[in-house]
Amino acid sequence: MIIVLKPDVTEEQIQHVIERVESLGLRAHLSRGTYRTIIGVIGDETKLQAEPLAAIPGVAEVVPILPPYKLASREAHPLPTVVDVAGVKIGGGHVALIAGPCAVESYEQMETIAAAVRRAGASILRGGAFKPRTSPYSFQGLGEEGLRILRAVGDQFGMPVVTEVMDPRRVELVSQYADMLQIGARNMQNFTLLSEVGKTQKPILLKRGMSATVQDLLMSAEYILSEGTSQVVLCERGVKGFDPATRNLFDVAAVPLVHQLSHLPIIVDPSHATGRPDLIPACAMAGLAAGADGVHVEVHHQPEKALSDGAQALLPEQYAELAQQLKQLAQLLGKTISTLEPVQ
Amino acid sequence: MIIVLKPDVTEEQIQHVIERVESLGLRAHLSRGTYRTIIGVIGDETKLQAEPLAAIPGVAEVVPILPPYKLASREAHPLPTVVDVAGVKIGGGHVALIAGPCAVESYEQMETIAAAVRRAGASILRGGAFKPRTSPYSFQGLGEEGLRILRAVGDQFGMPVVTEVMDPRRVELVSQYADMLQIGARNMQNFTLLSEVGKTQKPILLKRGMSATVQDLLMSAEYILSEGTSQVVLCERGVKGFDPATRNLFDVAAVPLVHQLSHLPIIVDPSHATGRPDLIPACAMAGLAAGADGVHVEVHHQPEKALSDGAQALLPEQYAELAQQLKQLAQLLGKTISTLEPVQ
Amino acid sequence: MIIVLKPDVTEEQIQHVIERVESLGLRAHLSRGTYRTIIGVIGDETKLQAEPLAAIPGVAEVVPILPPYKLASREAHPLPTVVDVAGVKIGGGHVALIAGPCAVESYEQMETIAAAVRRAGASILRGGAFKPRTSPYSFQGLGEEGLRILRAVGDQFGMPVVTEVMDPRRVELVSQYADMLQIGARNMQNFTLLSEVGKTQKPILLKRGMSATVQDLLMSAEYILSEGTSQVVLCERGVKGFDPATRNLFDVAAVPLVHQLSHLPIIVDPSHATGRPDLIPACAMAGLAAGADGVHVEVHHQPEKALSDGAQALLPEQYAELAQQLKQLAQLLGKTISTLEPVQ
Amino acid sequence: MIIVLKPDVTEEQIQHVIERVESLGLRAHLSRGTYRTIIGVIGDETKLQAEPLAAIPGVAEVVPILPPYKLASREAHPLPTVVDVAGVKIGGGHVALIAGPCAVESYEQMETIAAAVRRAGASILRGGAFKPRTSPYSFQGLGEEGLRILRAVGDQFGMPVVTEVMDPRRVELVSQYADMLQIGARNMQNFTLLSEVGKTQKPILLKRGMSATVQDLLMSAEYILSEGTSQVVLCERGVKGFDPATRNLFDVAAVPLVHQLSHLPIIVDPSHATGRPDLIPACAMAGLAAGADGVHVEVHHQPEKALSDGAQALLPEQYAELAQQLKQLAQLLGKTISTLEPVQ
Repeated sequence: MIIVLKPDVTEEQIQHVIERVESLGLRAHLSRGTYRTIIGVIGDETKLQAEPLAAIPGVAEVVPILPPYKLASREAHPLPTVVDVAGVKIGGGHVALIAGPCAVESYEQMETIAAAVRRAGASILRGGAFKPRTSPYSFQGLGEEGLRILRAVGDQFGMPVVTEVMDPRRVELVSQYADMLQIGARNMQNFTLLSEVGKTQKPILLKRGMSATVQDLLMSAEYILSEGTSQVVLCERGVKGFDPATRNLFDVAAVPLVHQLSHLPIIVDPSHATGRPDLIPACAMAGLAAGADGVHVEVHHQPEKALSDGAQALLPEQYAELAQQLKQLAQLLGKTISTLEPVQ
Repeated sequence: MIIVLKPDVTEEQIQHVIERVESLGLRAHLSRGTYRTIIGVIGDETKLQAEPLAAIPGVAEVVPILPPYKLASREAHPLPTVVDVAGVKIGGGHVALIAGPCAVESYEQMETIAAAVRRAGASILRGGAFKPRTSPYSFQGLGEEGLRILRAVGDQFGMPVVTEVMDPRRVELVSQYADMLQIGARNMQNFTLLSEVGKTQKPILLKRGMSATVQDLLMSAEYILSEGTSQVVLCERGVKGFDPATRNLFDVAAVPLVHQLSHLPIIVDPSHATGRPDLIPACAMAGLAAGADGVHVEVHHQPEKALSDGAQALLPEQYAELAQQLKQLAQLLGKTISTLEPVQ
Repeated sequence: MIIVLKPDVTEEQIQHVIERVESLGLRAHLSRGTYRTIIGVIGDETKLQAEPLAAIPGVAEVVPILPPYKLASREAHPLPTVVDVAGVKIGGGHVALIAGPCAVESYEQMETIAAAVRRAGASILRGGAFKPRTSPYSFQGLGEEGLRILRAVGDQFGMPVVTEVMDPRRVELVSQYADMLQIGARNMQNFTLLSEVGKTQKPILLKRGMSATVQDLLMSAEYILSEGTSQVVLCERGVKGFDPATRNLFDVAAVPLVHQLSHLPIIVDPSHATGRPDLIPACAMAGLAAGADGVHVEVHHQPEKALSDGAQALLPEQYAELAQQLKQLAQLLGKTISTLEPVQ
Repeated sequence: MIIVLKPDVTEEQIQHVIERVESLGLRAHLSRGTYRTIIGVIGDETKLQAEPLAAIPGVAEVVPILPPYKLASREAHPLPTVVDVAGVKIGGGHVALIAGPCAVESYEQMETIAAAVRRAGASILRGGAFKPRTSPYSFQGLGEEGLRILRAVGDQFGMPVVTEVMDPRRVELVSQYADMLQIGARNMQNFTLLSEVGKTQKPILLKRGMSATVQDLLMSAEYILSEGTSQVVLCERGVKGFDPATRNLFDVAAVPLVHQLSHLPIIVDPSHATGRPDLIPACAMAGLAAGADGVHVEVHHQPEKALSDGAQALLPEQYAELAQQLKQLAQLLGKTISTLEPVQ
């Protein structure tokens, strides 16, 4: 950490800063420049990150040098983490295709869609039972009945299932049904929930918040990891942008950036990132080409009757075509698409 | 609601859209233009807002005409709502000054700060007992002990108190101590929590999320209002911006915009909006001049020792000076600053 | 165009709006809903786009249905435009690799870099002679001497050259040397300059501004096209984002979006989009996978001595590796990488 | 400037960085921390700002300490600059009200509006003769005829006039008619134009670009100042935001931020910032309360017939009411509203 002092800082103020640093067991290295004096802090700067050093009189700016996350950092864990979702691997060269409808609506709906995406090559089935809807008047999901359907259809097709949990009081319930728990974008900084899902030791799919930097995302992962698990998959699903032509702004550069900074796998969700079926395939390919460890796409056989987000779903036949292209691209990139045993 | 059809839409597709609209008890009004055909929907469009009409083949775009919120809309409630926090009024010409430290740290700290802000003219005391910290390694608040201190100091100075609740399992606990419950920006779309706090019928301070539009904010208010309360105060506290010079981007235009769209009061929080003590007074004045129904400022007597966000706190003497200017400005604007009985 | 009227609109106001519409030779189609009255405008709405209809009393909102660009729209020109830069094709299945240093610094520098990128597979050489630098104290380019060097080195290696023009007074000069003129992001809405370069009838590389929507970009292209040329290539090079980890936010979804809306080719520039050599290859691959008609990358053999933007340049060997991957990906996608005759 | 080295930097690389720094006549101060080694640069870091130090092998990050602008910085010029526009003062406690239509349309139009705003208290008349329109099909301004009208009406009412210049070839022409030259937001980084207007030594109104940080704005001012003038007024007019409810996002905190960093005056333009007449008065008040040195508002007596941006204009009577409030607020703040001699 570097502490930059104000041009008119007094000697007394400098001494005060140095004493403050040293009182935490760190060393302060003073460097007087022509225009500014700076203090380099030597030692474990994480001790200082919670300290309001910028509030000390005479301090102009505090520049951290180390990232504030530890467990999530690649520096501490150089090898990529491979997350295992009931046998399906994500990360370290393994690419998972995750697909399914936005919301679980009925057994028939799930069965139809699961059959289609399984055939196309998806290895994890998604479906929402508890839906975070912007409007209190929208369909809020089938709740536990939805979980039951999702589990049953997953079992029928031999597919692990992932579903969102929004309420810390329901983490246990959702864990009984799901192989992987999803934290939605709107809850990325719901720290209470993060700790709670971390305790389950289940694989977690952590979606990036719409105004979260990649560092914010890794800090939220850190909350989960600090509960003693390493099974976290990050997900880029678009950030808030200024162009109303797309629902969000797909930040594909977050994929290689996460791979630089962290050992955790990261997948992409072009469905939420764009909100437009006509852009989803191109963005799915872009995400994989950028190094994503998985691709998450919403699929519905009757989008116009979907109870949630139908307008952004791919049709099963569109998904099958996309999955085919993704498989070819993965091969070119030297990645392995995680596959399931053929259904008997 | 207006449904814009694609240039190559077929007659069959048009009929399908019309049937779909009419099946919901609404009327469809077809208008064939030179370049596009549109369908105006006549009747209560909220029935349609959850329908994925954009997914119907032949539909190019769906343009809503009515806002998706009802209880929060000014159209439905032309008169401004006045929220009453244990006797302190907010809205409808009443301006409340809310102040206190970011986090409750000790009885002595709260007592010192409460005495100062009370003297300066603040009428509601704030202080965090459960803190949503980006890092799991930062101070997370004193928990129930913090609530106890906040309540006791509030009582000592005759000030109503407001504090954040992050966990639906603790809404009841926090309600026992606080006069007003705060929903933080990171939880603005934690819909589970919104419903839970709505049920308490307590006044709620709902902070705008960093990537929330004003409509998103009003939709979150709608979740609370739909629990049967009207006691919601909105808070503009800065949205995500691209200039690293300030912590967030203070969207002061949200104040008159909320007043156009809604009957709910809105206050400003220049502390979080800017993150810089040197900009807080100017932005507090700007917020009030724009019509805000209150000003929320973080104050600490020893910023450099604060356990949370010290670097953005005003000193008590800076706050006193600001409060003085705010009072004069309120007078000029014909607003009443809510005041407390003198402490005996 | 749809004109939405206010809930309290009077009959007189409605009549006034209708008369206004009809006075422009258009027809107004009135539709009275339960909550709102709307007027659909029938005929060529571009006549209305410049009219301040929203300022008419009683009007709540004006919703355009047609895009405001014509020459750039795919509706008007369904087939993709293929731009020809001195024999190198861009668009319609032809992918061009454009590479070179940020700025022309010397003959030796250009020769070294051109030899390397030519060998790697680039078919167009870039290099700035007039540099738009944020600081007046930074290197501003070699001016005409730079143009001379660029042309000579381009000729030596049989490569067409592209360079930026910033000043309408120098369009003629730059046209004498360059095969393609670049409009930089900061000048995307310098409408004077757009008209001027359009008149040259040369191929234009139009970079997207940092806060421009895709529609804004197409409107700027429209300025050029309205001078009677069709030779415009668009370029996605990152928009303003909130994460300081990257220089800009690479909006890869703009590639398929432009392909939906327009017949013009679009290339990507991951160098400016990310500003980080460690992210450039992944983003270049992402752009191509999303359908880009070209990839523009800055290359320098001595980045640490570059006079402009050295920190974001790839080394020649890094570029060669990337170009190899891009060629394989183009093949997989069924695209043709534009190539030059072997240098004799 | 601080150079942070990578964790795996070699001694040789460290030596290379030090030599590079010293070769520029600066001193390097090495500080070896537990986790990172840093090099503090002692001397005038502006020598280094153009150097691509981040491209040197072993360098992780380069942290500038000094701002890159000099002439615009408050550090160099502690006292506020007062700009004099033909007798009307802006800055240093003097507040100017600037008003007029978006575009000059006719003598009668300008005369009507000038009479009204003059009466209301405005002291500078604005009106566009060359209009930067997003669409090539929109009204582009009356050109020199517009300048002539503006000048004549300004003279008739004894008001200095400000108008935009977009083309470096017309700077001389516009200077013959205008007392102050405006650089529009879209040309804020048109560096060619900035230098050209700087040479006129006329007062310049420099509007902030939609994606410009405050530092970017000050760097653009630096271009003008480096031509030997000090007569630059900055203008906050909204930056790109994500909420479609307003045209732009009014960044009111830029006002006190500019006052911290620079000696130059800054005014606000709530017309472009919000694009909504119903929000303009509140934002004008907010800007002044935040310390703005002037308020720029577009006024039109027949908004629905305006040839440009009519939908965001205030009516003369709305402006008169706003001006009255602004005068009272200025008085409260201890500022002087610049006034003109009564028209005889």
